[in-house]
This record gives sequence, C-alpha cells and structure tokens, in this order.
Amino acid sequence: MPKISDKGLNMPPSPIRKLVPYAEAAKKRGIQIYHLNIGQPDIHTPEVMMNAIRNIDLKVVEYSHSAGIESYRKKLAGYYQKNNINVDFSDIIITTGGSEAIEIGMMACLNPGDEIIVPEPYYANYNGFSTQASVIVKPIASTIESGFALPPISEFEKAITPRTKAILICNPSNPTGYLYSKEELMVLKELVIKHDLFLFADEVYREFCYDGKEYFSVMHLEGLEQNVVLMDSISKRYSACGARIGAIVSKNKEVMAAALKFAQARLSPPTFGQIAAEAAIDTPDSYFEEVIKEYVGRRDLVVSALNKMDGVFCPKPSGAFYCMAQLPVDDADRFCQWLLEEFSFEGQTVMLAPATGFYSKPELGRHQVRIAYVLKPESLTNAMKCLEEALKVYPGRTVIAKESATA
Amino acid sequence: MPKISDKGLNMPPSPIRKLVPYAEAAKKRGIQIYHLNIGQPDIHTPEVMMNAIRNIDLKVVEYSHSAGIESYRKKLAGYYQKNNINVDFSDIIITTGGSEAIEIGMMACLNPGDEIIVPEPYYANYNGFSTQASVIVKPIASTIESGFALPPISEFEKAITPRTKAILICNPSNPTGYLYSKEELMVLKELVIKHDLFLFADEVYREFCYDGKEYFSVMHLEGLEQNVVLMDSISKRYSACGARIGAIVSKNKEVMAAALKFAQARLSPPTFGQIAAEAAIDTPDSYFEEVIKEYVGRRDLVVSALNKMDGVFCPKPSGAFYCMAQLPVDDADRFCQWLLEEFSFEGQTVMLAPATGFYSKPELGRHQVRIAYVLKPESLTNAMKCLEEALKVYPGRTVIAKESATA
Repeated sequence: MPKISDKGLNMPPSPIRKLVPYAEAAKKRGIQIYHLNIGQPDIHTPEVMMNAIRNIDLKVVEYSHSAGIESYRKKLAGYYQKNNINVDFSDIIITTGGSEAIEIGMMACLNPGDEIIVPEPYYANYNGFSTQASVIVKPIASTIESGFALPPISEFEKAITPRTKAILICNPSNPTGYLYSKEELMVLKELVIKHDLFLFADEVYREFCYDGKEYFSVMHLEGLEQNVVLMDSISKRYSACGARIGAIVSKNKEVMAAALKFAQARLSPPTFGQIAAEAAIDTPDSYFEEVIKEYVGRRDLVVSALNKMDGVFCPKPSGAFYCMAQLPVDDADRFCQWLLEEFSFEGQTVMLAPATGFYSKPELGRHQVRIAYVLKPESLTNAMKCLEEALKVYPGRTVIAKESATA
Repeated sequence: MPKISDKGLNMPPSPIRKLVPYAEAAKKRGIQIYHLNIGQPDIHTPEVMMNAIRNIDLKVVEYSHSAGIESYRKKLAGYYQKNNINVDFSDIIITTGGSEAIEIGMMACLNPGDEIIVPEPYYANYNGFSTQASVIVKPIASTIESGFALPPISEFEKAITPRTKAILICNPSNPTGYLYSKEELMVLKELVIKHDLFLFADEVYREFCYDGKEYFSVMHLEGLEQNVVLMDSISKRYSACGARIGAIVSKNKEVMAAALKFAQARLSPPTFGQIAAEAAIDTPDSYFEEVIKEYVGRRDLVVSALNKMDGVFCPKPSGAFYCMAQLPVDDADRFCQWLLEEFSFEGQTVMLAPATGFYSKPELGRHQVRIAYVLKPESLTNAMKCLEEALKVYPGRTVIAKESATA
C-alpha cells in the first residue's frame, strides 16, 4: 500500500470538531447540548440573498470569470468604498470562502520555509493553511489579562528572522473578539515598513464592532498599499457561511497577478454563491443594526455570567462573536470532554471549544475555552447555568495561579 | 515592496484563457467568434437541479459537514453503485469542483519533490495543481497517430524513479477525447502494483462515451483498492460547471483521513451547489441519452469536416467533448492568435485552444489545436467553414513532416 504524504500526516485535524463524537453520544443519551463551540451563527441570512437564489433563471450554470463575476466585483468594490476602503474591482478576486483567500494569499506571497508572524491565540485553521503552503507560523503571545491586545512591538522584533515574510492578524479577532485600535495598527505599520513585510489581515468580522468603537482596517493605513493583503468573506457578515464566498483584496498588482493564476487553476468561485453575494450588497443597514444589537446583548449576558462564576475570568471583547474565558480547571480539553461525557444539569450540557487548539503550544490554552455566543439569549442563559453548575462539581477543579494562567 | 513567492512567479497562467484579449478586441471590431476553445458546454443544466435551487427554503445558509452533506454523499454513493463502483458514503468527500479533488489528492499523497507520471497531452491545469503542491509532473508522450492511446508501458517504466509516487490519468481524456480500454487499464494496474504507486484518475467525463464503447473505471480494477484515488466532478455530467461540486473517492482509509483534514481546513464545500448536486442524482436517463446523441452528432460533424481539409488530421475520439487536430501551420499559438487578430470570413472567425498548453514542452503541441465541440451543429458547421478558409490563406501555412508532427 503506498504511503500518504508527510503533509497529509502532519496536517492538523480541526480542533473545533474533535469533540463531535462525544457530543453525538450525549445526544443519543437524550441530553440537550448548547453549541457554543463553533462560529456558526443562528442569525437569518438576509432575505435579499435568498430571493436572489430563488429567482435564479439560468439555462446553464456556467463557470464564472476566475476572478469572479464582474458585476459582483464592481458592487463589492462599492461596498468597500462605503467602508472607506479605496479599491476598485480590479483589486478584488472573489474566492471560495475566506479560507481560499488565505490559502491563495499565503501561496502567492510566501515560499516554503518562509515565516509568518501571528499573534496568538489565533484562528486554528491558520495552522492548516500554513501546513498546506509549507509556511512556518511564528506565534507572538498575547495575554488574557490585557484582553488579548496587540503584543508589544518588541516581541515582534524579536521574532523577525531573514525568513520572515509576513504578519497575519485577524481583526476583530477570532478567537478572542479583540478589536485592534488605530494606534495598534499604526505601530504595526512602522514595523511592516521597516522590515518590508506583507501585512495580511483577516477582517471577516468587520461588521461586528461594539460599544461605538471605530473599526480601523489595514486598508486604511496610508503608504502601506503594496504590503497589505486583505482576506475577506461574506460568511459571517450575512450569516451565509455555506455560500463559500470570500475575496482577496490588494493594491499590489504583482500579488494580484499571482493570485489570479492560482484562481485560474481552480477555474472559478461558486456561481450560486456569487449571485447571492451580489444581492447581499443591498442588505439594508437595519439588518446590521439589529444583528449588532443582538450580539451586544448576547455578549453582555455571557461575559457578565462568566465573570460572576467563582474562579472564572473573561475579558469583555469589542468585536466578533467570541470570547475567551479562563476557567478554574486542570485541563480545558479534559473539561470540555467531561461536559459532554459525564455531566448534565436538568438534562442539558454545553459544548465549548478548548483553547488549546488556538495556541501554537496547546499548554498555553490549558485553562481557557473559546465561547461563541451564537445562540439566542434564553439558550445562552441556560448554557451559562450549566457551565456554572459544571464548574462546581468538576473533579479537576483547580485554582489557577497567575503565572500558570499566562504561561 | 515585498517580493511575491517563487510559486507565485512560476505558477502557469491558464493557456486556455491567454487569447481572451485578442477575442475581446475582435468582438469590438464586430466579428462573431465561435468559441471552441473552452470546455464550457451549452447543454442546459437539468431542470431537477434548477428546481432544487429555486425551492431552497433555508433560514440560515450554514456550513455543511466538511466532507459534504451526508444525504448527498449517500445519494452519490448510490450513483457510483449504479456505475458498478463499489463505494459507500464514507469513501466520499465532496469537494469544491474536481479542481479541489485533485489539489487535495496531490497534497494528501505526495510530498514536495515527489513525482507524478502523466500521459501527455494532459489537462493544462495539472501543471497548476502540481506547482501548488510542489510536485513534479513526469510526462509520457502519447501520439496523435495512435489517437492518443496509452503509451507503451515500457515508457512508464523508464520514467519511474525512487521519487515516483503516482500516475495520473484522465479518462475519457481532456484534451484528446481518448477513452482508455479495460485492457489498457489492466496493464496500468500491473505497473501500479509492481511499484506500489497511487493511481489517480480524473473521470469527470464518465458519461461521455460513444460508439457503444464500454466505460471502464479505475475503481473497477480489483485488488487496487488501496492505490486508486478517483477525482470526480458534476461540472460536465450535468453541465453545471459553476456549481463547483466535485468529489474525491477512495477505499484507502489513510488517504481519506488525510483528505478530510484538508477538507476541514477549508471548512465545507458550497451548500447551494450541494443541494443542486443532490437533486441532480435524479436526472432522468433520457437526459443523458439526448446529450450523448447530441455530442456524437457534433463530434462526427467536426471530425469529418477537419479530416476533409487539406493537410489536417484529426483522430476520432470516443469520449469527452474534445478532439485534437493536427493543422498545416507553422505555430498553433501564432495561428490561433492570427485567427482572432487578422482573419475573418463573412464577419466570423473561430477561437481554438493551441495544444502547446497541453504538453509539458510547448513545442510538442506546435502543430496541434484542441477543439471543444460545445456548440450547436449549425454553429460548428460555420466554425469549420471559417477554419477551412483560414487555413487556405494563413501566411504561415506549412506542410507537416511526419517526424515533426510527432516530435
């Protein structure tokens, strides 16, 4: 039997999905599970998108242009301009989800063995994309005490080597919900210019900024046009994760010419999804106002409930729909599995994502979990009650010393 | 300005699309172009698929399972069983088009620097996928005189090195239309076993077999279950190229476990496309009977017209919807560009794909073009008339010596 590749062996499995078999077994035992483990929102997809799908009247479902349907790219350029991001349609290639935007961006800009600096904790799938591209992730630790703010620039400086080619940030962040300030991005800008790096920004949660805080994109950084590559997606913006429509956006013509060649190899992004995405641009502002109000309410409910629990600490995030909580448990993986295998409260339990998958070294996330507040308030209230009761009886309950919490 | 990657520089542009600017200019001059350059069929997508799309009633367009919607995978397993391919749904991962099936298959099975043997001429995008995966394509020449039959197995033996990990065939073939016989595949099987290789088969044209010839899949080869990886797509089968739905299929559990990790990294295949693809399984057999009758008529028309032209030779293919023709021209690239830039007959011209892009060394395809017979018979008749007139007046008309034709 021929052997699979080293890449196939080393490719990390999804840390978010690894507890699924335990959840399935719990469901079979009749236990209701509150899924706070994945970023699959329950918010309805805008009607304009679903109507566009229902009204499709194609005789032949053809390939689109490899860079995406031109009318969609033009409307999308308008969306960016509305967000003060100065691009036209030729600066945009439509991708199959944000995932493909990151894959193509990495392959177009980094050679195998090149290094990319990423503040951690970070979106777990960055490990998969870098394994695919044979690129090395160099993590820089951010801390829960600071609410996961940008680590000191001196830490970035220390991590830079001759192989460093790019910095990747997620803003607002999955998994932390942290929203980088204009000041933080200005500091990053200086570093990027000094070392002539690419600055990749995964900004798929752009719309989800709370408390009146100003959203500042890397595309707003003047003088950085040749360095910035934006990775985007409509998945979260319009609660349309399954449409698989994203975009790679840059003013750097060399990057875009290379990206187009990767786009041509896979022929085209999905036609149905693009039709829905083009219609989505007409989503009324009221949709976002309602969604943001809903998420702020959910966030406040969850963060407040968490911080009232004995031994729990959860910084209040200003963006996305995640928060990271430190729990008084020996091991987050063990605790999350125990929640599904051995615990229930009034026939219910809660599924969380152990933070171990969001750090380069799992032990850094040993006492943390990521909570996606993607359920209705009444479900979140029940889920928090479950968690509170669980922490009272979990056999591995531990007091987290400060140094161990941030180790 | 930071430099893009070597991979980004070396990634081949699409040879099928490189003449597009000349076509656009010709259209602006008012010339009608018959597009025989791309495999975008004009056949209508089955009504069952379009109805499924129009009847979508989702509140939230969610991620599907990374391996694809389970009900679709189960129905797709039924489709394969109907084709005597003995798989169940756990042997199938739904991909974003056949393109992603090939990308994931290469990454899961081959290390950077490993070699994959491919009979040439071959589908141009294999070069792109291998560049992405840092895999080396080792071509084995097939000849137009033999109708592009499988090259002698001794040629494969000569090409095998310690780095050889797989053989990739496309059956029926894009670009040649050649349909491998059971006997040819049995010979390949012995080779694959002898050297413990993977056998990748791109069988996206499975339905398009003509003249009563039996279709024989690599999945029908007994004793090769651990070696065979099938790359499939609904794009051509149901004339639904834009749906971007394919599949990677194998009985090798290690390959499938690795493939699933790559699938998890990109989260899920497109939901809308999967819904349409699931409905497509119910396409009545009469649809295929009509389509095949249509393509046989088109093929006969084109191949007969070509072989009547002075100095032209075109073997009659038994599958897919392409043929390769040898033309009495100095250079197929120059000729195809001239057709668009300088030639017209009664206000019309024809766009062809120079075969140079389908060979590892462009000079091997210098006197050949690929013709996709994807237009209605009356358009094909006009296109052939244009080509005939063009060959009469093309300034670079040449007599092709036998050795030069097959060099």
